[in-house]
Amino acid sequence: MIKVGIIGAGGYAGQTLISILLRHPEAEIVWLMSEEAHKGKKIADLYPHLSGEIGLSCQTLDDLDKVLKKVDLVFLALPHGIAINHVPKIIDAGKKVVDLGADYRFSDNAVFKKWYGIEHSTDKYLKQAVFGLPELYRSEIKKTNFVANPGCYPTASILGLAPLVKNKLIDFDSIIVDAKSGVTGAGRGISLKTHYCERNEGIEAYAVTNHRHMGEIEYQISKISGNQINVTFVPHLTPMNRGILATIYAKLKMPARPAGGQNAKLKINELNQLYKEFYKGEPFVRIFEDKVPNTKYVSGTNYCDIAIQVNEATGKAIVLSAIDNLVKGAAGQAVQNMNLICGFEETAGLKEMALYP
Amino acid sequence: MIKVGIIGAGGYAGQTLISILLRHPEAEIVWLMSEEAHKGKKIADLYPHLSGEIGLSCQTLDDLDKVLKKVDLVFLALPHGIAINHVPKIIDAGKKVVDLGADYRFSDNAVFKKWYGIEHSTDKYLKQAVFGLPELYRSEIKKTNFVANPGCYPTASILGLAPLVKNKLIDFDSIIVDAKSGVTGAGRGISLKTHYCERNEGIEAYAVTNHRHMGEIEYQISKISGNQINVTFVPHLTPMNRGILATIYAKLKMPARPAGGQNAKLKINELNQLYKEFYKGEPFVRIFEDKVPNTKYVSGTNYCDIAIQVNEATGKAIVLSAIDNLVKGAAGQAVQNMNLICGFEETAGLKEMALYP
Amino acid sequence: MIKVGIIGAGGYAGQTLISILLRHPEAEIVWLMSEEAHKGKKIADLYPHLSGEIGLSCQTLDDLDKVLKKVDLVFLALPHGIAINHVPKIIDAGKKVVDLGADYRFSDNAVFKKWYGIEHSTDKYLKQAVFGLPELYRSEIKKTNFVANPGCYPTASILGLAPLVKNKLIDFDSIIVDAKSGVTGAGRGISLKTHYCERNEGIEAYAVTNHRHMGEIEYQISKISGNQINVTFVPHLTPMNRGILATIYAKLKMPARPAGGQNAKLKINELNQLYKEFYKGEPFVRIFEDKVPNTKYVSGTNYCDIAIQVNEATGKAIVLSAIDNLVKGAAGQAVQNMNLICGFEETAGLKEMALYP
Amino acid sequence: MIKVGIIGAGGYAGQTLISILLRHPEAEIVWLMSEEAHKGKKIADLYPHLSGEIGLSCQTLDDLDKVLKKVDLVFLALPHGIAINHVPKIIDAGKKVVDLGADYRFSDNAVFKKWYGIEHSTDKYLKQAVFGLPELYRSEIKKTNFVANPGCYPTASILGLAPLVKNKLIDFDSIIVDAKSGVTGAGRGISLKTHYCERNEGIEAYAVTNHRHMGEIEYQISKISGNQINVTFVPHLTPMNRGILATIYAKLKMPARPAGGQNAKLKINELNQLYKEFYKGEPFVRIFEDKVPNTKYVSGTNYCDIAIQVNEATGKAIVLSAIDNLVKGAAGQAVQNMNLICGFEETAGLKEMALYP
Repeated sequence: MIKVGIIGAGGYAGQTLISILLRHPEAEIVWLMSEEAHKGKKIADLYPHLSGEIGLSCQTLDDLDKVLKKVDLVFLALPHGIAINHVPKIIDAGKKVVDLGADYRFSDNAVFKKWYGIEHSTDKYLKQAVFGLPELYRSEIKKTNFVANPGCYPTASILGLAPLVKNKLIDFDSIIVDAKSGVTGAGRGISLKTHYCERNEGIEAYAVTNHRHMGEIEYQISKISGNQINVTFVPHLTPMNRGILATIYAKLKMPARPAGGQNAKLKINELNQLYKEFYKGEPFVRIFEDKVPNTKYVSGTNYCDIAIQVNEATGKAIVLSAIDNLVKGAAGQAVQNMNLICGFEETAGLKEMALYP
Repeated sequence: MIKVGIIGAGGYAGQTLISILLRHPEAEIVWLMSEEAHKGKKIADLYPHLSGEIGLSCQTLDDLDKVLKKVDLVFLALPHGIAINHVPKIIDAGKKVVDLGADYRFSDNAVFKKWYGIEHSTDKYLKQAVFGLPELYRSEIKKTNFVANPGCYPTASILGLAPLVKNKLIDFDSIIVDAKSGVTGAGRGISLKTHYCERNEGIEAYAVTNHRHMGEIEYQISKISGNQINVTFVPHLTPMNRGILATIYAKLKMPARPAGGQNAKLKINELNQLYKEFYKGEPFVRIFEDKVPNTKYVSGTNYCDIAIQVNEATGKAIVLSAIDNLVKGAAGQAVQNMNLICGFEETAGLKEMALYP
Repeated sequence: MIKVGIIGAGGYAGQTLISILLRHPEAEIVWLMSEEAHKGKKIADLYPHLSGEIGLSCQTLDDLDKVLKKVDLVFLALPHGIAINHVPKIIDAGKKVVDLGADYRFSDNAVFKKWYGIEHSTDKYLKQAVFGLPELYRSEIKKTNFVANPGCYPTASILGLAPLVKNKLIDFDSIIVDAKSGVTGAGRGISLKTHYCERNEGIEAYAVTNHRHMGEIEYQISKISGNQINVTFVPHLTPMNRGILATIYAKLKMPARPAGGQNAKLKINELNQLYKEFYKGEPFVRIFEDKVPNTKYVSGTNYCDIAIQVNEATGKAIVLSAIDNLVKGAAGQAVQNMNLICGFEETAGLKEMALYP
Repeated sequence: MIKVGIIGAGGYAGQTLISILLRHPEAEIVWLMSEEAHKGKKIADLYPHLSGEIGLSCQTLDDLDKVLKKVDLVFLALPHGIAINHVPKIIDAGKKVVDLGADYRFSDNAVFKKWYGIEHSTDKYLKQAVFGLPELYRSEIKKTNFVANPGCYPTASILGLAPLVKNKLIDFDSIIVDAKSGVTGAGRGISLKTHYCERNEGIEAYAVTNHRHMGEIEYQISKISGNQINVTFVPHLTPMNRGILATIYAKLKMPARPAGGQNAKLKINELNQLYKEFYKGEPFVRIFEDKVPNTKYVSGTNYCDIAIQVNEATGKAIVLSAIDNLVKGAAGQAVQNMNLICGFEETAGLKEMALYP
């Protein structure tokens, strides 16, 4: 059993980490950190559903030095710009790190600054971090001790796009990602935007042209393709708690309208085959052929469900990619990364079934 | 006061019509028709919220002849393929007709057959029907006695696209409409797809490549542009009762990336100006400049709220268009059309404020 | 047209008042006041659904003197303890007042202090205020110029109980009110309790033994009965925006178990008759005999829907009473009171149909 | 590993059983039965969230004989009146049975007939069945091979009431259970009542005086108390998927109003202590002292969360009891019973954390 600490335990990603780790066969939570206001409070008082499951109270980052002597691995689940101040010390203390925040997701400091308005004083740790999308970077992750866990929208979007991009089957400047997210994506912090009455029974787009995850998607898609790609990304807030459905559109590099239905059918079959091959053996990707992904189907799980269809008349591929934003989009993927860097079974602690309906 | 009858009163569009007409200063409901199973039942028993508001019971189409002597105007709110059997008789009896269904939305019989699999035995009535989108066809509507009321998705999509298409500002083959709909769009008919537990807390796409409203959008957009246009249209079911948000993407015919921020700002201003000009004086279109449409803002109203933004890096215009699918997307627009063909004030009966929150 | 001002326009009750008054045939809003943070902001920016409907901006109470010269009637929709500081000045200026808050609902200062922890420095205005439940106090309301509008839970509870209490048909110490409320009852103020994710998909009781509305219900029920009555009142937060369903239990003063089914049926008929008689001619009370109230049926309306049933084996009457907490439970009833004190038609501005579904 | 079969696998209780059993360390699903319409269909096609988890298809009861040779234990999750035809054969074949339906919950055939309108042709199996509420009947369950799993409302209600009833602390004729349920309680069968749009944003009571679970609660409470007790039970449908909150009211046999606050506090402490003692060591009951149960806290778990409070002025105890109706209220408790009759660890397969938020 390794000993782990969680910085940012009071947020939704943090408490999801707790839930997963409490049932993990190889890891033990020994330390929880949250904001000053939570200091000394039992996590089970902040989250009553944890009553009877965990007795730990929240500490603050003031105790970091002391704590570092006790833990083998640290998860950070913080708003951007904070991890940057603590990760170096944790790495230097020889601890493994999985950072769920955005601070180390770009290996290029300038790109990070472009999207987040701040920059790292040194590239040292930045270069060390591996982008924690196991389906694309498993071998690198296995070799590192520092993982930058992907964002929720990027996870759904990149997994949906990768087979098309890697095989150069689409016009790279035609990519559009229309994403629908549950409200947990906005975190536990209170605001008018996340007030029950204002969100219930309403859907709206936000950050229509400048969401930071657009940068992350572009950065990764460019890397995969070997081209500099810009993506049109529009996120939407929807009245549900969990889940992201990314509806992805891209122009296929193929004759716009095939001669007949049979050809069309073949093409879909081939694309389905391509996706199945691409994700063959992946424990957490399911390719749907005869049904469409629904955020409900992955609720509480580490799955990413993907389907591809083609609008023959317009030549557009339409990829549907669904995840639970708090699991595959945050805490579940973080544990998957922990499993990889610690040499555990990759699915350890992540076998939870979807809570349906 | 004109006397109106409603065929298909038992569905959601039908009962919304009833609610609007009960408060309409110029119209009186004298006759309700619904399916066989509702025969003789009070509408207030099918919809208890109407208790104390209306005493009428449901009749069936068997009484049509008798009824036609009593009414001046008939609304039809039926699944496709049924109105086709009754509209000729109603027209021939010299009555005004507003058909909320799909049967007369295409003036081209072949196109209708392509999308709906059935055809009209004669073009006569088809040619007579005017597509009831007042913002585009007001003068034609005023002159007719037979309106084919647009579908819900087409209303939101066409109003969002019209200024760009008419002014030929976009690549016509780049249009994508990603639409999010509340569940009332699927009607009151029971099914596993509309079962509470299966819809709640989940979002999924449906009819990804072949929704019939795609045909209606294409038909109208082609007409407006003077070009044959195919549109990529993907509807989604979302966990809310009312509302459609159409997120529309199209490639602007402009330099992909302007020299500086100032230019970009100008472009947005110009596009906003364009939309405002296009819908100047329209009682039911609101152009949002500094905020984004939310389906909540139009809930219970006949408004279509529209905003346009531009992703500078990709050169894509992003238009957000929100309606209440049962009001502007069905019964409200039908009453707006009734007002126009009867010479009433266009907004009569349609001044309801949004029910917020 | 009378000129009205609204103090507390930024809250949900305030904006509901605005919506109703904008369509009211006899009243015109000339002045809006909200908290300091809203100063100078257009109300349509705080509530985008009001775009195109109203151009007014928010002022603060600093402008009260100036404003009092312009208005005939003032609505106050404030947290308790604030109206107390402003009502005297408004009354003394000769203006009519409808206070939606709690400060003047008890004519007994000591009872007010018991429940709210503060007291009035003089009984003068307290004695002047009439409790604005028209179904019970219509004649008094018509004669006053100062109405204390009832709370939301008390409105549903008192209307449900009044016929039984007035006719002394129940054991007064057996009354239990189990109330289920939508989240708008908690207002627009942000908090973890009203965070979307924390409220969605969960029901919990709150203020289980000491909700202030218990005092208001007891005070009124005691007054109606002529006895000092204590009530067990437990409110619950439920995952919906609008509506209160009060399920009321009381022991009938009758033989515990009737001889046969026929008698039982008679008893129910008599109770139904009693309720119908009691509320005969009331424009906003509907007695349901063969169906049960549902908060949906009154959504957006000023109705209170009531049904009574009897559990024969236990001798308990079960009264179901449903209102829209923002309309009959707040702004609608306030306008009903305005209509009464101004001599307008009682239903003026309140004819909105339920927004269904 | 024992081999289990599930009759009624296509319903919500059935699929929850599947999810739990797929992760159970001691049991293996070898056979699924569902209605005729599901014959031959893969369960993962009926429930796409099970994709990649289970390959089994649905059979029908026609195969029962063949199947009985392969299984050690059978779960039945059927509407009432069907299990009655199959349980005898399964028992006679020497198989263990956990019946999630109502057919064997009353050991008295006449009481069963009173509530369900049908009767058993023999008492033989009826007498054999043990009511599967482990917290009350653990030792009997351990000795039997046939468990009648309690209903969802009865589970929450009986666990909430048992300490008060067993210790005779309340007036037995004063018990009221006001229960709020998520829509999954109504099953997966489609109906207007469970149509998304009709349930969303609305709360209503149903079966106000005659819900069958009232009989089950009365039967058990009478047994526990040794008195014949009638209970007033009113269930409500609420807009959420999962969970039951039972708010239970009963008159305490104590001085109606204690002398002072201190006494009151003592009384609550004593009641809390009583509940803690009563459920000491229970793995699935949590007593909340300083917070109230919320259906969210138990979502996806086998917990029953209970809190007790007292309204001093009325002398009423108010017990709040929350469960997940599909887990502790159905499939989870069924597995708990399987564990007991098979000699497994009682919590095996039931350690799932709440899915929060």
